Amino acid sequence: MYDEVGTVREAWRVAIMPDSFKGSATAREVGQAIERGVAAAGRAAGVAVRSTVIPCADGGEGTLVALAQAWDCEPIEVETVDALGRPIIGRIAISPDRGIAVIEAAQSNGLPLVSDVPLRPRDASTRGVGRLIRAALEHQVEEILLCIGGSATTDGGLGLLCELGGRALDASGAELPDGGGSLIDLATLDLEGLDPRAAAVRWRVACDVTNPLTGPTGAAAVFGPQKGADAQDIRILDRGLDRLATVVAEHTGRQIGDRAGMGAAGGIPVVVAALLGGELLPGSEMVAEVLDLAPTLLAADLVITGEGRFDTQSLDGKVVDMIRRLTPAQTPVIVLAGEVAVDAETWLARGISAACSIAGGPTTLPDLRRDVLARLTEVSTALVSLALTTARPRMDPTP
Amino acid sequence: MYDEVGTVREAWRVAIMPDSFKGSATAREVGQAIERGVAAAGRAAGVAVRSTVIPCADGGEGTLVALAQAWDCEPIEVETVDALGRPIIGRIAISPDRGIAVIEAAQSNGLPLVSDVPLRPRDASTRGVGRLIRAALEHQVEEILLCIGGSATTDGGLGLLCELGGRALDASGAELPDGGGSLIDLATLDLEGLDPRAAAVRWRVACDVTNPLTGPTGAAAVFGPQKGADAQDIRILDRGLDRLATVVAEHTGRQIGDRAGMGAAGGIPVVVAALLGGELLPGSEMVAEVLDLAPTLLAADLVITGEGRFDTQSLDGKVVDMIRRLTPAQTPVIVLAGEVAVDAETWLARGISAACSIAGGPTTLPDLRRDVLARLTEVSTALVSLALTTARPRMDPTP
Repeated sequence: MYDEVGTVREAWRVAIMPDSFKGSATAREVGQAIERGVAAAGRAAGVAVRSTVIPCADGGEGTLVALAQAWDCEPIEVETVDALGRPIIGRIAISPDRGIAVIEAAQSNGLPLVSDVPLRPRDASTRGVGRLIRAALEHQVEEILLCIGGSATTDGGLGLLCELGGRALDASGAELPDGGGSLIDLATLDLEGLDPRAAAVRWRVACDVTNPLTGPTGAAAVFGPQKGADAQDIRILDRGLDRLATVVAEHTGRQIGDRAGMGAAGGIPVVVAALLGGELLPGSEMVAEVLDLAPTLLAADLVITGEGRFDTQSLDGKVVDMIRRLTPAQTPVIVLAGEVAVDAETWLARGISAACSIAGGPTTLPDLRRDVLARLTEVSTALVSLALTTARPRMDPTP
Repeated sequence: MYDEVGTVREAWRVAIMPDSFKGSATAREVGQAIERGVAAAGRAAGVAVRSTVIPCADGGEGTLVALAQAWDCEPIEVETVDALGRPIIGRIAISPDRGIAVIEAAQSNGLPLVSDVPLRPRDASTRGVGRLIRAALEHQVEEILLCIGGSATTDGGLGLLCELGGRALDASGAELPDGGGSLIDLATLDLEGLDPRAAAVRWRVACDVTNPLTGPTGAAAVFGPQKGADAQDIRILDRGLDRLATVVAEHTGRQIGDRAGMGAAGGIPVVVAALLGGELLPGSEMVAEVLDLAPTLLAADLVITGEGRFDTQSLDGKVVDMIRRLTPAQTPVIVLAGEVAVDAETWLARGISAACSIAGGPTTLPDLRRDVLARLTEVSTALVSLALTTARPRMDPTP
């Protein structure tokens, strides 16, 4: 086949960059199953195919696993606490060669971890997230990727800050107890004891919401109810976050109360972005940057991505959307999914070449989950075979 | 885009030649649903696409409807009888321009039509098939296509012959009663009164079985049991067919007892092929010849076929197999099906480029049947869009 300037390439290049199929298969398993189909199609068409599998994620749940798989490293277990201070084991992943740690805050402050007891939105704390971060800093990392979705906390990152050596003091100079409920008494922040590594490290924070810290679209008002906050809790948490914004402004000279994204995950960005200089960016963009996806997508003749359920959300900042945006317009992008819940008109308009379910006929969700890898291979074979057969006149015959 | 000698073509040509999705949609409905997907993909890719829909069939049930749809004519109702002589309405189709009639024998002698009463294999007669043929001859047709599967009869076509004016006589010169059970008394055939049009017309008989007329693999032994024949019936029917072969050999000088295919449909080929000079050929080949599919397939850039269930039988003389064999090897052939029950390795080895289910995710058979046309359009859009995007570098841009 020929590249854009007409020179012969030695192989047809397929970039395989799927999300996980949640509850069924990890992103790497999905990618490897697709790769088997690509290879089968190449053999049948007599075309040399070079495929590259990079497990992807969108900054939400599963990002740690996907990045660990992409880095080919095992996650590390860390003793920490949940949002209510109960001991648990969380995991972090560290790229062996590049000194990057990925932390999913929800491994500590996640809502599902405290679903066994009545929610206490004023007490819930990010202190355990701070422990995960400390563990990463112990590994001398140069950069921390923090994924913050799914939290049970509305403490503006207070617990995290204190765990890293900061002190939050009331007017009498006493340390505040954990939880967003105490922020209304915040008078000053003492950062003298802050771990210097926490300030020196590069921070990138995956953040897909644009809510400001406070007010009617703020962290407490919008996300408080799902964390158990009633009207009174919301008022107190909102006033506390407002107080935190004022104190942070005094420290940094920057107004953050209205800044988009500060209201994510109960205000964690206040500490990590406003105080520690972290960069907020959409989760899928963060993953794409860290995994350096663009060059592979640029060189690909065909791109295959996918996720468990392909719906309109998938076209709005998720992995599929990110892959399509990073791929040159003329390169075909295939989406494979357990269920395709977007009509063709919609995905065509977004530049997707083909979106296909992996179902081979009438089937139940449990059966499809059980067969997910085999079905991914079969359907990949079909689509890549079609692409190779169609493109064949452009290719050189191979032995 | 370019053809084989490098001249620019004005449009990408897609040949759409599906079988029916039995119980869900006719071949034409399937083809039109696919065509909508092809058009949507063409619009999205900015490529001029010219599609041709030809409803297909394999010579079995549904062939009459598919050919009538391909000819764009309405089937004609004909008063006839079932295998046990009870009045029923059957249908035949006649091509308006070409003088070809298509007759499905099972519209008269079909097993399902007599499933309401105890089977009487010795009495079951093809006389009603003769009435359908007479109706076609009344329309001055030049050719009759006879599809003979699914019969309840084992009379060697005796009833059909008598209905067309032939006489089957016993040793005393008396006419035999209807049914294969009386063939053991056959002494001679009197063809003086035979309708001359029946001898003048061209006959093609769709026949996918290779069984001989008699013996352990003959019509009575192999197919008798499903028509209600017990061991005694089988002995009598087999002896009768043997007697018929002897008499036919006296008339024609040809031995037919061992000839492959003579045992189809209770021996109907004995009359239609051996006596009247008809040609036996596989059903899908007959359809391909009559509809002149080869030139369209030769000129296509992409071919789409399909059927309700794509299984190993589909690769053995059915529509999918026929389409693949008539399509040049380098042209991609897509198979769409409600269920794909063949693994990729198998269909790849048979030169299919892609076989895909139309299911969009977990679903039940009734739901899939209800949505069959919409799903065909969606999946066609995906596959053709992929093909067009992959092939784009070979095409001229269109407005």
